[in-house]
Amino acid sequence: MTNQRQYKVGILGATGTVGQRFIALLAEHPFFVIHALGASARSAGKPYGKAVNWKQTKPIPSVVRELVVQECIPERFKECAIVFSGLDADVAGDIEQAFRVAELAVFSNAKNYRRDPHVPLIVPLVNTSHFSIIPQQQRLHSPPLQKGFIVTNANCSTTGVVVPLAALERAFGPIESCMITTMQAISGGGYPGVPSLDIMDNIVPYISGEEEKIEWETLKILGGLAQGDDGLKAFDMHTKQPLRISASCNRVPVIEGHTECVSVRFARRPPPSPQQVREALQNYTSEAYTIGCPSAPRHTVFVHEEVDRPQPRLDRDYQLGAGVSVGRVRQCRVLDIKFVVLANNVAIGAATSSIINAEYAVLKGIVSA
Amino acid sequence: MTNQRQYKVGILGATGTVGQRFIALLAEHPFFVIHALGASARSAGKPYGKAVNWKQTKPIPSVVRELVVQECIPERFKECAIVFSGLDADVAGDIEQAFRVAELAVFSNAKNYRRDPHVPLIVPLVNTSHFSIIPQQQRLHSPPLQKGFIVTNANCSTTGVVVPLAALERAFGPIESCMITTMQAISGGGYPGVPSLDIMDNIVPYISGEEEKIEWETLKILGGLAQGDDGLKAFDMHTKQPLRISASCNRVPVIEGHTECVSVRFARRPPPSPQQVREALQNYTSEAYTIGCPSAPRHTVFVHEEVDRPQPRLDRDYQLGAGVSVGRVRQCRVLDIKFVVLANNVAIGAATSSIINAEYAVLKGIVSA
Amino acid sequence: MTNQRQYKVGILGATGTVGQRFIALLAEHPFFVIHALGASARSAGKPYGKAVNWKQTKPIPSVVRELVVQECIPERFKECAIVFSGLDADVAGDIEQAFRVAELAVFSNAKNYRRDPHVPLIVPLVNTSHFSIIPQQQRLHSPPLQKGFIVTNANCSTTGVVVPLAALERAFGPIESCMITTMQAISGGGYPGVPSLDIMDNIVPYISGEEEKIEWETLKILGGLAQGDDGLKAFDMHTKQPLRISASCNRVPVIEGHTECVSVRFARRPPPSPQQVREALQNYTSEAYTIGCPSAPRHTVFVHEEVDRPQPRLDRDYQLGAGVSVGRVRQCRVLDIKFVVLANNVAIGAATSSIINAEYAVLKGIVSA
Amino acid sequence: MTNQRQYKVGILGATGTVGQRFIALLAEHPFFVIHALGASARSAGKPYGKAVNWKQTKPIPSVVRELVVQECIPERFKECAIVFSGLDADVAGDIEQAFRVAELAVFSNAKNYRRDPHVPLIVPLVNTSHFSIIPQQQRLHSPPLQKGFIVTNANCSTTGVVVPLAALERAFGPIESCMITTMQAISGGGYPGVPSLDIMDNIVPYISGEEEKIEWETLKILGGLAQGDDGLKAFDMHTKQPLRISASCNRVPVIEGHTECVSVRFARRPPPSPQQVREALQNYTSEAYTIGCPSAPRHTVFVHEEVDRPQPRLDRDYQLGAGVSVGRVRQCRVLDIKFVVLANNVAIGAATSSIINAEYAVLKGIVSA
Repeated sequence: MTNQRQYKVGILGATGTVGQRFIALLAEHPFFVIHALGASARSAGKPYGKAVNWKQTKPIPSVVRELVVQECIPERFKECAIVFSGLDADVAGDIEQAFRVAELAVFSNAKNYRRDPHVPLIVPLVNTSHFSIIPQQQRLHSPPLQKGFIVTNANCSTTGVVVPLAALERAFGPIESCMITTMQAISGGGYPGVPSLDIMDNIVPYISGEEEKIEWETLKILGGLAQGDDGLKAFDMHTKQPLRISASCNRVPVIEGHTECVSVRFARRPPPSPQQVREALQNYTSEAYTIGCPSAPRHTVFVHEEVDRPQPRLDRDYQLGAGVSVGRVRQCRVLDIKFVVLANNVAIGAATSSIINAEYAVLKGIVSA
Repeated sequence: MTNQRQYKVGILGATGTVGQRFIALLAEHPFFVIHALGASARSAGKPYGKAVNWKQTKPIPSVVRELVVQECIPERFKECAIVFSGLDADVAGDIEQAFRVAELAVFSNAKNYRRDPHVPLIVPLVNTSHFSIIPQQQRLHSPPLQKGFIVTNANCSTTGVVVPLAALERAFGPIESCMITTMQAISGGGYPGVPSLDIMDNIVPYISGEEEKIEWETLKILGGLAQGDDGLKAFDMHTKQPLRISASCNRVPVIEGHTECVSVRFARRPPPSPQQVREALQNYTSEAYTIGCPSAPRHTVFVHEEVDRPQPRLDRDYQLGAGVSVGRVRQCRVLDIKFVVLANNVAIGAATSSIINAEYAVLKGIVSA
Repeated sequence: MTNQRQYKVGILGATGTVGQRFIALLAEHPFFVIHALGASARSAGKPYGKAVNWKQTKPIPSVVRELVVQECIPERFKECAIVFSGLDADVAGDIEQAFRVAELAVFSNAKNYRRDPHVPLIVPLVNTSHFSIIPQQQRLHSPPLQKGFIVTNANCSTTGVVVPLAALERAFGPIESCMITTMQAISGGGYPGVPSLDIMDNIVPYISGEEEKIEWETLKILGGLAQGDDGLKAFDMHTKQPLRISASCNRVPVIEGHTECVSVRFARRPPPSPQQVREALQNYTSEAYTIGCPSAPRHTVFVHEEVDRPQPRLDRDYQLGAGVSVGRVRQCRVLDIKFVVLANNVAIGAATSSIINAEYAVLKGIVSA
Repeated sequence: MTNQRQYKVGILGATGTVGQRFIALLAEHPFFVIHALGASARSAGKPYGKAVNWKQTKPIPSVVRELVVQECIPERFKECAIVFSGLDADVAGDIEQAFRVAELAVFSNAKNYRRDPHVPLIVPLVNTSHFSIIPQQQRLHSPPLQKGFIVTNANCSTTGVVVPLAALERAFGPIESCMITTMQAISGGGYPGVPSLDIMDNIVPYISGEEEKIEWETLKILGGLAQGDDGLKAFDMHTKQPLRISASCNRVPVIEGHTECVSVRFARRPPPSPQQVREALQNYTSEAYTIGCPSAPRHTVFVHEEVDRPQPRLDRDYQLGAGVSVGRVRQCRVLDIKFVVLANNVAIGAATSSIINAEYAVLKGIVSA
């Protein structure tokens, strides 16, 4: 990695929860260098250390403490090769589009473009093949783009479930149905986010829009990217082998780490045994890791043998939260196999995914220098 | 109720978590009078106020503060018509049997006799009809009994799910499959129970034996009690219409109230709509309430309209925790209908069930004076 | 109480946290009848059940569910004898003044008038004698008032500490210094209030303005109300016997109930013994209870003997939270005596205080019919 | 450090909470090498990975996973230069003595020898000068020892307060009185330790023996080590300048990190200003750091400027928890100055202190090779 060239990067929404994570991760990155920080007009003009209400457990990296926050305008970021977006959905749509038009490569954690038919929705441990739609995104844009594009990553709870599902489909062919019950951490709600009076000694069995996101995004991510008769690529939403997904989402009094109880039915009969499933999960490797993305985890899926794991407090920081933990793989009396997934919602479920996506794009030459 | 005669009752395991609940509830009961308290040899001989490490939010009832704790020996309870057992499973087997042999009516919260083919496993809001096996239990006992018998109530997480399932089967016929993911309160683990280091800011996705209990007990409770060719009654374990149940149990940092995400598939095609399910749940009434059991709730199932309810902290104490709350009734993309259940694990999930069972037995003349 | 006449009351800020408490308490009051509910323009015109995001553990009282919420304008409340204010401080100043001018008796939980030299700051278990300034408040008002006045109650953390301090001063004469460290519940911060990300698995050792409130309000409450040379009554701020108070305030992950570690030094030498202090606290009775205020607790101060009490979760609801709990009375190596106080911040620390104040005013004829 | 020789070390009580911390820290130590692990007979003979119920957030270090656990008998540890003890108090007395007699250097986190007049009680950021009593401890032992000795570190809550007090005494001379209210994390109670039912949504205002430890240990640590007329060194317990300490200890629902509200009165009049105190704290450096102990923190006391810090969740892991955080330095109306301290109870409050003590002893030649 020593002769790897460096890339200047910008961070949009730098004072928010996801923005703070981007900063904490990028401050020590081998080839991304934080060059510009963007936030709302209220913060613009202040040194980052004054503008931010820093809530991370590590101190503010010294490289950004005195960096002056900019408004989220492309001119301020023109020296950047890449822009990471941790913007809120209510402003992300327009700002990310402005940056794309300004020929910047945008890696977004926001939901706004996830359903766009030309924007890939990439969980970097799963479907980096979907990067192949970028040229079409640029060509069909009006005006056509040379370097600018948008790549999104998935919702935090979707991320946790698609990684093991991808591993299982790779090993055993299509999954036919999947039931998911999530127990999601409060950090998934941003800051100030969930009021303490709502969640201490409590469960809230509802998160607005979350079940729909899991049910829809999973299909786009696990589905193929097919060339149609018109010569255009299109996401097939897993329709070749219809996949029925039912999600129930709960907010729980956990700070970080989404736990999900998942049960699946395979198309193939007989279905694989729990032991075969365990091995398939453990052996699954992402292309991102194989090609050398520095933030990609060596163990894409870590399979726990202890009967009571994974647990968010003990397992969420393994590999800096970049992988996914699975445990309790066993037979299901209604579908075929059930298991427990843990994914760190603020790491692989958010900023880490964007960063691995950008690493992949750099290593594959998708981002121009 | 004014001319209702009074019944002297004893409580076994009176210093434990469930025992304390029995006392708190029975101290204000319209026709049960606490007469004797049993605990281990270590506590025996002390006034209850000294023997107990009282952990309830209400003060110790004055009627028991000076009552001297007894060893759990039938002679000490011979003036009692009824004995409630909150004993731990490691001692409940022998002690409850000794009390039955001594011709006492035992209403037990322990698991030991739940799988006994002659002992009914009764959730009083569901299957009071199973009391009809009591004469057979007495007759086949060696030696045969006149008044002694054992009735058990269900595991706390089973209780939450069988009430709405019973309501649905009454309205729409048999359920074919059922997926359950529980989020169970720490009080379900007794005292000292769950160490705080294990559960603060955490989820433990495993509770020993719990999934098996839900999967097995539900079948006994919802199944029939059929007369065989040999003239003997037997629990049919819902085998006339096989019911597949798959449970995933989690411990969560909630003090009281088990929340369960449930999804069901009906035998009948097409299945009922969410609105029909809501109405069936809301209209469901227990025989225990109908015949006048004073602790039976008026609303057996309370159906919430708000999208984010039930929540354990807000809803667990409704009707003193004697009913069950259901919310978020909606279609399931994998099975037919899904919803959220909340049941107070220390009320209807434990002591309250035993008490309603005893009230029912009194009102029906099953307990002799 | 049967021939007690009824009084129509209004509640300002009815949809807020304190307003909800007023409603829950007043819905079952022996002589106050909820007649009008006031809230912001956004809520006005809606039935209360629709306007409120009800967060109490008891269901909305049926008597208010359909009551249409009004704007906080005196004309809408003119049939009320009494108005309770749970308004936020940013609007309470003007609105409460408008109601006073309209000749309504205002019992306010807001801080705006607590430092007004003519408005009494009354903790009803302590200084009901300060009601005697009301005629002066009315006479000096411009224009002079016949019936309108404002009475405030104290900040929730002040309330907890002044009750035992008053008991000690009554028994042993003036206290000279007092050190207080609070551990305050999240409900003291209102709703949405404290973000869960700030307080789960955490302590925040700072609450804006809180230490100043305790240090100032305690002096006004425990001080005298002296007649000056100009014939006017004035609060002496305990200056006859200067009292130095030092408070350190912390927010802790507890839902309800403020715990405070208090240490005091008496003027009198030698100081009383821990046993004498215990007795003085236990024997202390409020005038509010003596004259028959129905919400005043029988045990003004409940003194715990167990070494590890009071605890917020176990003790905050004793007497519906209307009294104060004290425990661990023992010698202090720096001052004289130290102990632990628990007060329910949403009961005696807020709505219950206002209600007892109003009951007192009614029973004493200070409120005209 | 490259030519630093390596020292084999043993860990007693290796499967317990403190033992696990020792292992996590020592597995990456520059000159200590884990050589032997001791635990109870129940664990002895098993590979560590099987014997332990590992509860750390990092995986078990690979160097110990297969290491076979030994009984706590000196013969098993005779190749070790140093033994760290995380033993429970009920067995630590005899075992540590056996190891001392066997001429091993014992660095103990247990309380058993803290009050021994020949055993130093050393918080390594404060009183490393007390190591000078070791020769006397060895000489007066029967039989006299060549290499064996015991050094203890302080109770976790004592540690937090003595560091800033030492800094203040160094800068401003003796402190006369000190009031301390602690809010202590559950991890201070070991495992299983505090039951979740006791501490969720709760405060327990009592920790057995804790207040006495703070009041006594602080005097030994901050006091001098004087040569008497008999030629023997003795701890003076700060009696030259009597120091009155009053502690109130509370258990709070925080996982790690003890927060303490401290108020002090200096002997010197006038007392230092808050700004002078801030500077003295910030400038304080430990001898352990100066001489190069690798685990000693660069910032012995980190002084926060933000009004609401330190907070346990955000600040406990700064410098791996080896330093102490102070914030809110301000005047006290009763004593002189008050402030908030945060110390990581499982790091500098336990294992880290023992390790720095051992590093110091190695660098000073107190431990023989």
